[in-house]
Amino acid sequence: MSEQQEPQPLGTLALRKVAIDTYRENVAYMHRECEVYRAEGFQALSKITVSANGQQIYAVLNVVDDANIVAPGQLGLSEQAFKQLDFATNSKVRVAHAEPPPSMDAVRRKINGERLTPDDFHAIARDIANNRYSRMEMAAFLVASGQTGLDREEILNLTRAMTESGEKLEWHESLVVDKHCIGGIPGNRTTMLIVPIVAAHGTLMPKTSSRAITSPAGTADTMEILANVKVKPAVLYDIVAKQRACIAWGGTARLAPVDDILISVERPLGIDSMGQMVASILSKKLAAGSTHLLIDIPVGPTAKVRHMQDALQLRKLFEYVGDRLNIHLEVIITDGSQPVGRGIGPVLEARDIMQVLRNEVDAPNDLKQKALRIAGRILEFDPDVRGGYGYGIARDILESGRALEKMEAIIEAQGKQSKQFALGKLCTEICAPEKGFVTEIDNHQMSRIARLAGAPMDKGAGVDLLKKVGDPVDKGEALYRIYAEFNADFKFACDMAQKFSGYRIGREKDILKPHQEI
Amino acid sequence: MSEQQEPQPLGTLALRKVAIDTYRENVAYMHRECEVYRAEGFQALSKITVSANGQQIYAVLNVVDDANIVAPGQLGLSEQAFKQLDFATNSKVRVAHAEPPPSMDAVRRKINGERLTPDDFHAIARDIANNRYSRMEMAAFLVASGQTGLDREEILNLTRAMTESGEKLEWHESLVVDKHCIGGIPGNRTTMLIVPIVAAHGTLMPKTSSRAITSPAGTADTMEILANVKVKPAVLYDIVAKQRACIAWGGTARLAPVDDILISVERPLGIDSMGQMVASILSKKLAAGSTHLLIDIPVGPTAKVRHMQDALQLRKLFEYVGDRLNIHLEVIITDGSQPVGRGIGPVLEARDIMQVLRNEVDAPNDLKQKALRIAGRILEFDPDVRGGYGYGIARDILESGRALEKMEAIIEAQGKQSKQFALGKLCTEICAPEKGFVTEIDNHQMSRIARLAGAPMDKGAGVDLLKKVGDPVDKGEALYRIYAEFNADFKFACDMAQKFSGYRIGREKDILKPHQEI
Repeated sequence: MSEQQEPQPLGTLALRKVAIDTYRENVAYMHRECEVYRAEGFQALSKITVSANGQQIYAVLNVVDDANIVAPGQLGLSEQAFKQLDFATNSKVRVAHAEPPPSMDAVRRKINGERLTPDDFHAIARDIANNRYSRMEMAAFLVASGQTGLDREEILNLTRAMTESGEKLEWHESLVVDKHCIGGIPGNRTTMLIVPIVAAHGTLMPKTSSRAITSPAGTADTMEILANVKVKPAVLYDIVAKQRACIAWGGTARLAPVDDILISVERPLGIDSMGQMVASILSKKLAAGSTHLLIDIPVGPTAKVRHMQDALQLRKLFEYVGDRLNIHLEVIITDGSQPVGRGIGPVLEARDIMQVLRNEVDAPNDLKQKALRIAGRILEFDPDVRGGYGYGIARDILESGRALEKMEAIIEAQGKQSKQFALGKLCTEICAPEKGFVTEIDNHQMSRIARLAGAPMDKGAGVDLLKKVGDPVDKGEALYRIYAEFNADFKFACDMAQKFSGYRIGREKDILKPHQEI
Repeated sequence: MSEQQEPQPLGTLALRKVAIDTYRENVAYMHRECEVYRAEGFQALSKITVSANGQQIYAVLNVVDDANIVAPGQLGLSEQAFKQLDFATNSKVRVAHAEPPPSMDAVRRKINGERLTPDDFHAIARDIANNRYSRMEMAAFLVASGQTGLDREEILNLTRAMTESGEKLEWHESLVVDKHCIGGIPGNRTTMLIVPIVAAHGTLMPKTSSRAITSPAGTADTMEILANVKVKPAVLYDIVAKQRACIAWGGTARLAPVDDILISVERPLGIDSMGQMVASILSKKLAAGSTHLLIDIPVGPTAKVRHMQDALQLRKLFEYVGDRLNIHLEVIITDGSQPVGRGIGPVLEARDIMQVLRNEVDAPNDLKQKALRIAGRILEFDPDVRGGYGYGIARDILESGRALEKMEAIIEAQGKQSKQFALGKLCTEICAPEKGFVTEIDNHQMSRIARLAGAPMDKGAGVDLLKKVGDPVDKGEALYRIYAEFNADFKFACDMAQKFSGYRIGREKDILKPHQEI
């Protein structure tokens, strides 16, 4: 009874791909009758490690009762997980219980209200980057560190840790400018005007943008109407060296990948805090190699930031963290009381932008003015531009056609889009129920309708605004058009517009005033 | 352009089961080329509803690229999800985007530090019971309402909402007693002694217990060595009517199901708060129809509650919520400085219990004394028992053999276990590295070793303590034995015991004193 038996080595399993797409979550499939499954006392949904030849990934276990999906003796991996392990089918792999990520200790301390150290944040970022956190664990971290959960020193340390979790772009210049707008205003596609203006002046502006997450279009989605945006970092360097700029999708470089992973949890939960927003934005910009950054905070009753006081608090937090991370940062507060421009959705927004670049008479002036204002401020990052002269320079560049020329050169360099994207073939007009003035347009509702219509996945889907705040309308006059590609989407969008059009029609004196800008 | 096209009705899909066990998470599988998938703009991991004939379930979507798993035009459901919809294969079902659970608004308000109303808690409990929360969303709720997140009024409301989320047992008597021990002390299997003692006295004690979650054995796991514990509510009523008691697994009745669901998220996250503990325990007891409840809080350096101050705070919280929910509740604080009894694991613990019931001379006395003390207090819930006389009555019942008789009757009524469970065939002894006294035994470490050895899944696996705190030992003398069924488990347990045996050997004066009891 007392002699110790030598334990036998654990069995290995033959790897196979299971053609199931589980997005950002690695899933492993093991048959219920598999000996290793039985011996290890695994449970469905437990976290395991899969390893061989020094490589190791983490995955959530699903138990299979169908040998056609995975047979006893095999280990199946979902598509993305299979890709991460660079092995052929039938390679021998080992599986084991995954220890919980060591940094969960720090998360629990944060839940208990303790202050975390820089090392804690680095450990958390590292474990997240290595796929060791489940979505549940990330939710715990996000909630515990949301709202007043992090003080500004901790936000600084989180930003640093997220920046260092991935690659960094290096430009070897002292002035590398960027801009960022706190989202929430549909149609606010100023970036595609600002970049060519700034680059035409000669200032370096290598812009890497995201795709839409909760909005009807991101800059990358709209730029894709005109040009290829999936540019590998090596090619990016080359383009930027020649053009002083690019407008590319940030996803090809691994810039602050932890940020993307956290966002994939934050968004479906609908949680959002100032600290996480600041860490998210600044980590991406630092990884992209920016030295100077202009941040635009639109304020309005249906914008992300609703009160001037919140905007000022957010500004101070950006300034605090930015200063300590050696990024020259300026914050402007703009009017976010209604959508900018006319189009909402990739094709429609690209149309607006080209109208402005071409100086067409009916180009949306609010989009143009906002772009000029921001471009002007960015131009003033150049020590040779006298304070207050930026706007004039930007206007000259735009109106002389040099911005259009630069945009065409950037499109050429990135590769002109070969596909022709057309407006969605399903269309309807939403009309004014009575005579009066457009007193308000709800940003959220317009975004929601455009997204339901299919934007940004269906490039030609979206909403085209025919009236803006302050415009007089007759009864039955069209306020906006909805475009969609597919019947189901079209129905959803129309139903939603039926519920609430997003427009309020009223008396002239009730017209919502634009928000004060500073 | 402006005429409105009538949207076509959405397509339906043919249902099929996908033989994958995804435990508490419903997963739906749809082929990437499926028209409905394309038209609806679904994404992997998005939440969808699957419905037909007025039934509806929620599921997380996985996208499939293999028509053998699920073909275009089909909708696959994981095993548990398929079971929930009572439909045959190839039934037509509809799928749609799931709206986020409406009560997530309340969770976000809680994240923002607001106080929730009774209606909020009811909405949250209802949505959780209906599988509308993802594990991520539950983690957000748990973290936001953990620690100081809930005041005691909110804990009361959460308890009420959780109680009402499921079935309720009704006993139609004015004295229905129960007990609960705040876990963390291995071997602490007093329930199986207390129930027969109390029932032999005539007091109604219909005990529904849980299986182990993080411990090496729950009461249901150990009782299963002797008797069937899966007793349907109807049969349970009958048994209790005749025997005045039962010791059954609570899982067959749907008692406070929201509690089980939340625990399945809480445990892997390793988060735990007083408020959730109180709500969890009291909701289960109320649903089980208890009128009088004794709660045992063991305190010790390696117990769940480590300081007297915390135990007192927890007691007050139990009292506050219990009083308002009309349950007569008493809390005792006991010594939790080391494991109780000798065996840790189902077979070993059942052995200890039978030794005490049979009044064997070498029966573990600490287990007996603890059971008598608690049984005595429970007997005093009976208005006919004079204060202070409970212990004596309990001892008489035990030592006269009437408790054993009652236990045998309960076993008979529930159905004697037909399987013979033996001790694990792999065994090793862990020995003292030097001469001295056992000064401390670490509860956590002993639990961990027993679990690694395979308990409670392998009934015969576990740890048998040969020495307890205060015992003198010689160098090389055995401290405890590890039993396991499988090689892999055995190796894990031995490796862990090698790292730290859980025992401290030292001088007589360093022996850890038992914790004060009140």
